[in-house]
Amino acid sequence: MVVPILIERKRDGHPLAPAEWRELIEGYVAGRVPDYQLAALLMAVYFQGLEPAELAALTDAMLQSGDCLDFQGLATPCVDKHSTGGVGDKTSLLLAPMLAACGAAVPMMSGRGLGHTGGTLDKLEAIPGFRTGLGLRETEAQVRRIGCAMIGQTPEIAPADRRLYALRDVTATVESVPLIAASIMSKKLAEGIGGLVLDVKCGSGAFLPELPRALELARTMIGLGESRGCRTVALVTAMDRPLGRACGNALEVEEAIEGLRGRGPSDLMDVTCALGVEMLLVADLAADAAEARRRLDDVIASGAALERFARLVEAQGGNPAIVDDPAALPQAPVTRVWTAPAGGTVREVAPRPIGRAIIALGGGRQRVDDAVDPAVGIVISARPGDRVERGQPLATIHARTDADAERCAASLAAAVSIGEPVDVLPLVSHRVTSAGVEER
Amino acid sequence: MVVPILIERKRDGHPLAPAEWRELIEGYVAGRVPDYQLAALLMAVYFQGLEPAELAALTDAMLQSGDCLDFQGLATPCVDKHSTGGVGDKTSLLLAPMLAACGAAVPMMSGRGLGHTGGTLDKLEAIPGFRTGLGLRETEAQVRRIGCAMIGQTPEIAPADRRLYALRDVTATVESVPLIAASIMSKKLAEGIGGLVLDVKCGSGAFLPELPRALELARTMIGLGESRGCRTVALVTAMDRPLGRACGNALEVEEAIEGLRGRGPSDLMDVTCALGVEMLLVADLAADAAEARRRLDDVIASGAALERFARLVEAQGGNPAIVDDPAALPQAPVTRVWTAPAGGTVREVAPRPIGRAIIALGGGRQRVDDAVDPAVGIVISARPGDRVERGQPLATIHARTDADAERCAASLAAAVSIGEPVDVLPLVSHRVTSAGVEER
Repeated sequence: MVVPILIERKRDGHPLAPAEWRELIEGYVAGRVPDYQLAALLMAVYFQGLEPAELAALTDAMLQSGDCLDFQGLATPCVDKHSTGGVGDKTSLLLAPMLAACGAAVPMMSGRGLGHTGGTLDKLEAIPGFRTGLGLRETEAQVRRIGCAMIGQTPEIAPADRRLYALRDVTATVESVPLIAASIMSKKLAEGIGGLVLDVKCGSGAFLPELPRALELARTMIGLGESRGCRTVALVTAMDRPLGRACGNALEVEEAIEGLRGRGPSDLMDVTCALGVEMLLVADLAADAAEARRRLDDVIASGAALERFARLVEAQGGNPAIVDDPAALPQAPVTRVWTAPAGGTVREVAPRPIGRAIIALGGGRQRVDDAVDPAVGIVISARPGDRVERGQPLATIHARTDADAERCAASLAAAVSIGEPVDVLPLVSHRVTSAGVEER
Repeated sequence: MVVPILIERKRDGHPLAPAEWRELIEGYVAGRVPDYQLAALLMAVYFQGLEPAELAALTDAMLQSGDCLDFQGLATPCVDKHSTGGVGDKTSLLLAPMLAACGAAVPMMSGRGLGHTGGTLDKLEAIPGFRTGLGLRETEAQVRRIGCAMIGQTPEIAPADRRLYALRDVTATVESVPLIAASIMSKKLAEGIGGLVLDVKCGSGAFLPELPRALELARTMIGLGESRGCRTVALVTAMDRPLGRACGNALEVEEAIEGLRGRGPSDLMDVTCALGVEMLLVADLAADAAEARRRLDDVIASGAALERFARLVEAQGGNPAIVDDPAALPQAPVTRVWTAPAGGTVREVAPRPIGRAIIALGGGRQRVDDAVDPAVGIVISARPGDRVERGQPLATIHARTDADAERCAASLAAAVSIGEPVDVLPLVSHRVTSAGVEER
């Protein structure tokens, strides 16, 4: 293998052979292929894309660079969900216990906050004592025992992906649909799951704001999953405003628990149930969407989902008292109500500035090694299209200091605009399967 | 400066500011910007190009990363020539002494063989004792004393270019017109010259075989030179067959000496004189082309050019006896005549396979640190369009072993085809100046 010749071939728009992709990734992990050659190749991929056979080979090579979860012999079907990330998106916290209560096994591997978006691991770690760093064997045992586990990407899972991702992050090669798809799917396929539901966000707060690119990513991941024996379905959901009201780690855990009690904000519950229905369907745990929806409603109404969440928290070292007593979650010392600066219609609640305001409060990272303050955040009751009076409370800021709260209020004034109402995206706009795209 | 944001900007087709290019190159040389970020940026430049202001800033930053030759106060005009490289191209060996004999100062910095092409430094080092590694001050003194010096790129000249070139070589980012232009011109401008003539090769054996790309490179370099106070002119010359008869280091030195005696092959003399005329014109040492041509003919006829070459060889530690006694050059132990395998018309004498055959003989490098055998090579008398009889001698192979000669004969059979004659390129097809392109 002469690496510059492979880079040149990709640069000139010709595909590399699957064996060449395998050798490149193995060589990279073993230190035989240096960072600078991979960086040039990744930029060439950014411009020239990957053919399906190349994408499959790259994904397989990343997957095979590490260990996998193994649920051989488990009678219950294994499923998971993946989201491309957003602001206020705490559906994972609800879905893992809901699906486990419905009889699925959910080995959910999640990430940390990235850019302006929050991360499931950061949210879970707001629960005092909660450990996300389980080993693979420990994770398998917990899933077999209580039906779910929520962990971070372990060092054994797809180490090639972790190194490649770090390289892409510093070489402006993140925003490539095939590279995103390979990165996500190499980790998800390592979970040993038979079904996967993708929540592909669309709108100004999404990683890929434009619908065509969101659909391209959905189709690419579905092709990868289906061809590797994992039933894969995607929903395109709205991220032109935050999902639910709470944005910030502990605040989102609290809202998720409310949701598991059936008292969550309607947009959060609608998206959660839409994803849950698809998860039950790919797991063959319901004959149709109506039956799936009934099963989800049942595990909420019976308290089985909430009880499963409490077992999950306890199993991973967290304080299960938080389930009944939200005050056991970290509390910010300063709370401040933010009111409408004018009367009118709420025009927009822009997720990116809100995500950045939470980072500024300390609730997310400016740098990879920043500590995250679990207590801070914003609870926003305003929704695009709401009629509001001047002075009406629209949000509550939870901050570490008065100065932080002050700055956050200024950010909110820029993020929440009052004026002519704009069209909002449908909460769930498209369903994508290997058969095609259907509008909802 | 946040490097990934700069890479992203270039990736998306937007220009970087001159100060950003400066900071990037300074940071790269200082080790603050890692190879992998530069590699990704270079690949983005490959796809998106550089605007003139960016190209100028990159070139200046590379130039200013090191030291320059200084000919302040020298009464004679300083000129040089650059060739994009070919097979059998020994014009530099003739032009430096010819121009010096005409009253110009020629501080000529050259390179080694690259790919299938030969390199002036390798040819010079075929002369026993010849030192190409002069320091900058030593070079200045020699040019002031005898009017010319022929050296390699010293460590002090454009170190940023040397590092960038090595990185481009292993990341498939060599073939980018603006990067080629910046690399060449950063070194040439460091010679402290007031005039530069570019020999841009065209045809199957050229680095950029297609005329439009050759012209684009010529125009780009001319823009850079002229805007930096260096009068720059380019000739597009033929590299669809070797230039002259001798290909191989010592063999080419011998042919160059024949040329300085006025007895070189006509194609070599025509290209050499065409370039020499332009050099005299940019140096203001002739009023027009006819006068320039007369001056070149005079320094050949009078022996002044050959005498200047002998002084150059002696000044740089070489054995000046080679000028009068070609047997003092390294001689290959095996010589073998290669004859026409069939009667007919010589269709093609393909330079790339011939260049590769010379590398296989040991006369060029497979790897950067390979030693070069100065004695080996091929003298080819066949020219495209020649009528030949079966068995007629067409070339002489100079090899280290019989087995090498055997393999070389097989390569020649593939490189020199007999059949229907094909059109050859005009020896000098275009003249390019800042005013535009004229066909010759």
